Amino acid sequence: KSVAVGEVEAPESHIVFGRRYVRPRRIVLLEANARGEKERTPSWAFHSFLAIHQQTTESVVVHSIPFYSISSRERVNASWEERKGRGWIIARSFHRRLQPLRLDRARASRYWSSSKVFEFEWCERIRICCRAMSGRGDEEASRLDQLKKTAAATVSEIGSLTVNDKGEVWFAELSEMWPGQAFTIKVKEVLFHEKSKYQDVLVFSSYEYGNVLVLDGVIQCTDRDEYSYQEMITHLPLCSLESPAKKVLVIGGGDGGVLREITRHETIETIEICELDEMVPEVAKKYFPKMAVGFDDERVKCHFMDGFKFLKEVDAGTYDAIIVDSSDPVGPAASLFQKPFFDLVHRALKDTGIVCTQAESVWLHLDIIQELHKLCLEVFRDPAKNSGSVNYAYCTIPTYPSGQIGFMLSSKSNIDFRSPKQKLSENSSALLKYYSPEIHGASFVLPQFAKKCLDC
Amino acid sequence: KSVAVGEVEAPESHIVFGRRYVRPRRIVLLEANARGEKERTPSWAFHSFLAIHQQTTESVVVHSIPFYSISSRERVNASWEERKGRGWIIARSFHRRLQPLRLDRARASRYWSSSKVFEFEWCERIRICCRAMSGRGDEEASRLDQLKKTAAATVSEIGSLTVNDKGEVWFAELSEMWPGQAFTIKVKEVLFHEKSKYQDVLVFSSYEYGNVLVLDGVIQCTDRDEYSYQEMITHLPLCSLESPAKKVLVIGGGDGGVLREITRHETIETIEICELDEMVPEVAKKYFPKMAVGFDDERVKCHFMDGFKFLKEVDAGTYDAIIVDSSDPVGPAASLFQKPFFDLVHRALKDTGIVCTQAESVWLHLDIIQELHKLCLEVFRDPAKNSGSVNYAYCTIPTYPSGQIGFMLSSKSNIDFRSPKQKLSENSSALLKYYSPEIHGASFVLPQFAKKCLDC
Repeated sequence: KSVAVGEVEAPESHIVFGRRYVRPRRIVLLEANARGEKERTPSWAFHSFLAIHQQTTESVVVHSIPFYSISSRERVNASWEERKGRGWIIARSFHRRLQPLRLDRARASRYWSSSKVFEFEWCERIRICCRAMSGRGDEEASRLDQLKKTAAATVSEIGSLTVNDKGEVWFAELSEMWPGQAFTIKVKEVLFHEKSKYQDVLVFSSYEYGNVLVLDGVIQCTDRDEYSYQEMITHLPLCSLESPAKKVLVIGGGDGGVLREITRHETIETIEICELDEMVPEVAKKYFPKMAVGFDDERVKCHFMDGFKFLKEVDAGTYDAIIVDSSDPVGPAASLFQKPFFDLVHRALKDTGIVCTQAESVWLHLDIIQELHKLCLEVFRDPAKNSGSVNYAYCTIPTYPSGQIGFMLSSKSNIDFRSPKQKLSENSSALLKYYSPEIHGASFVLPQFAKKCLDC
Repeated sequence: KSVAVGEVEAPESHIVFGRRYVRPRRIVLLEANARGEKERTPSWAFHSFLAIHQQTTESVVVHSIPFYSISSRERVNASWEERKGRGWIIARSFHRRLQPLRLDRARASRYWSSSKVFEFEWCERIRICCRAMSGRGDEEASRLDQLKKTAAATVSEIGSLTVNDKGEVWFAELSEMWPGQAFTIKVKEVLFHEKSKYQDVLVFSSYEYGNVLVLDGVIQCTDRDEYSYQEMITHLPLCSLESPAKKVLVIGGGDGGVLREITRHETIETIEICELDEMVPEVAKKYFPKMAVGFDDERVKCHFMDGFKFLKEVDAGTYDAIIVDSSDPVGPAASLFQKPFFDLVHRALKDTGIVCTQAESVWLHLDIIQELHKLCLEVFRDPAKNSGSVNYAYCTIPTYPSGQIGFMLSSKSNIDFRSPKQKLSENSSALLKYYSPEIHGASFVLPQFAKKCLDC
């Protein structure tokens, strides 16, 4: 897959590098090798590289020596000297992406800074890219203008999207729940945006996380990492039960992911789900088929209503487990973090039943977690009988604020949540990507700062 | 601390709510109570609230009922009906911040969306805020203009900062190491920005994370969460040693945080640190005094040079532990992820010595971790002697990409890294905010997707 050192014609176009346009005079392929990281550029190649560039004033160099090797850095610096600090170098970088490095006068004898990343792998593709980019400079500029206009039209009606000067659309997760910080994702396409009776529902496809579901501006799940949350909020309670679960209730969880995980337990007889917003399952079935597969199981029965009202009508002692897969305690899910709700949950659970509820991140919301912990102790502990258990566990998930999320587990019985009693079948276990009996135990071990707060 | 229901004069000014200016006709304090969350607004207050607003066309209402209670939501909706969908409501929100909710025609009978968060706690302060904001509308607009200009002047020379239309400055952590996503932090003030011989060095103060150190556009540490990384990269190796550490080497770690943690081990006799970039400790001492305190210990000796070159000159079998506190494998730290470097580390360690190196996040860089794991096995495993150990652990940290970071631990001996052998003194333990012997063990338990990759 080696490509010889050589030259290709420079395209009659602008190419966007980092934040500005460059019109390259010519493009030089110094060396291209499909497995470049492991190999060294022969010295003759390096010398011809220097020789060519002594006379070049503005050029783009495709340079496949691994960016991260010391020798390559020294070489690039040397080449910089020879080229009087003008032009560009594109080096192969760690992820086999091409990285253009700008070298300009201001950085003489200093280090370089990286800018935009090109998303193709092999040097041959430079040619394709150049062809795609070719055309008059004006055309190119008007194409970019068009891109920005199209993006801006989509963006103007969705507060959490912005379009930058490269025509890229980005989603920013701003919320009063985590002021002064925001995780941002580059948007490929907005797939769905409507206001339901209860909340703003947005689905977009992203470059790195697949499809993303956003409710009231807050990321609920992405194709790439949803499983960690769904597996943990489900298997932590179901595997902690003394005897296998038969009857389970989900409150919230309209994306279907928790249902999917529950169905992996073969002992389950009925699964009820009570979701407030009918639009969420509709959207999930269309844009997140791998998650929404949970709805297809014949043991599943859906109720579209308020979880609070639903629980009032349920017979006491009905469920082995209740999973509260809620959004944050602002907006529609607010009541699911309060005492009247937990009183109803307590009533609806069997004596040995377990409730597991979404319980925020220790890094951001220790105050909420502390209050929830206190509340659950109040509801589930019975000092007279010396019974009741409450415990907090967590998992990591990159697209949730601070990169993690926790779960509050409670029961009227004395249950040691830390050690799983139930095991998934071999077939089911093989499908899991996050949960294991070992992770189950480890997820209850909190960092010191959190442990101190939740022990008191 | 209760404030009676009443009215205050509307200021002669614009107030910025969310994305637009509002000139309120009057401000109504419906109820203000310092511990509002636990209490209910008396119904008379609610009724007078409705009564007042039946005649109001454009108004700001300070409404202290907790935003997240169902009852309050119903009330707010009811009040919306009465007010024909015009005006604003400010509700107390979860974090005792005030949240303005815009209600407009477009959202008739729908839910509301949240916008800007006000950063004061009690309703009394609304008055102060109004006073601060008072003045002619023109003055207010020119003040905002000035703010934007000042911010833009700072921002133009730092690629990773942007200023939005509210005059807020935000830092975005863009990198080819995590394309298509970026963590962003709201900037209070840029404290330092210079290019050292090796990299771009930026320090800013933030609203939520204290001071932030950024090298080549990538966050290295923040006042708020640095301890989790520093404690784990230090105590994981030092507590895994069979006998207490006496001689330790740090490579990188110019912020001093790892030094601080090492000094908590009372058995330590000498600590050497080899940092490439002298500017980093200088900046750390000035802007991160709590971290840089490590440099003050008399057992610490600094070398400002390339870690690679330093290790070449070191006697074989010198160190009990080597801690490689590097930045990512692009830029100056690239060589610290390659075999020649690990060969030198192997040589410099005692037979029972341990090296612990920064090893990225399983969610983003499983490929890098796999290669590093293979590399460490190659260097540290001796099949003939059936000796050598390599293991991967991780911790959570909100301001690192994906919210976590890992560590690769290696030794020529057979060491069970998972169970700590050394204990910190009681005094030292009391100072720790993340590490504990229990966290030590749990940090090696990987999610299934990562375990599968690192077992093979």
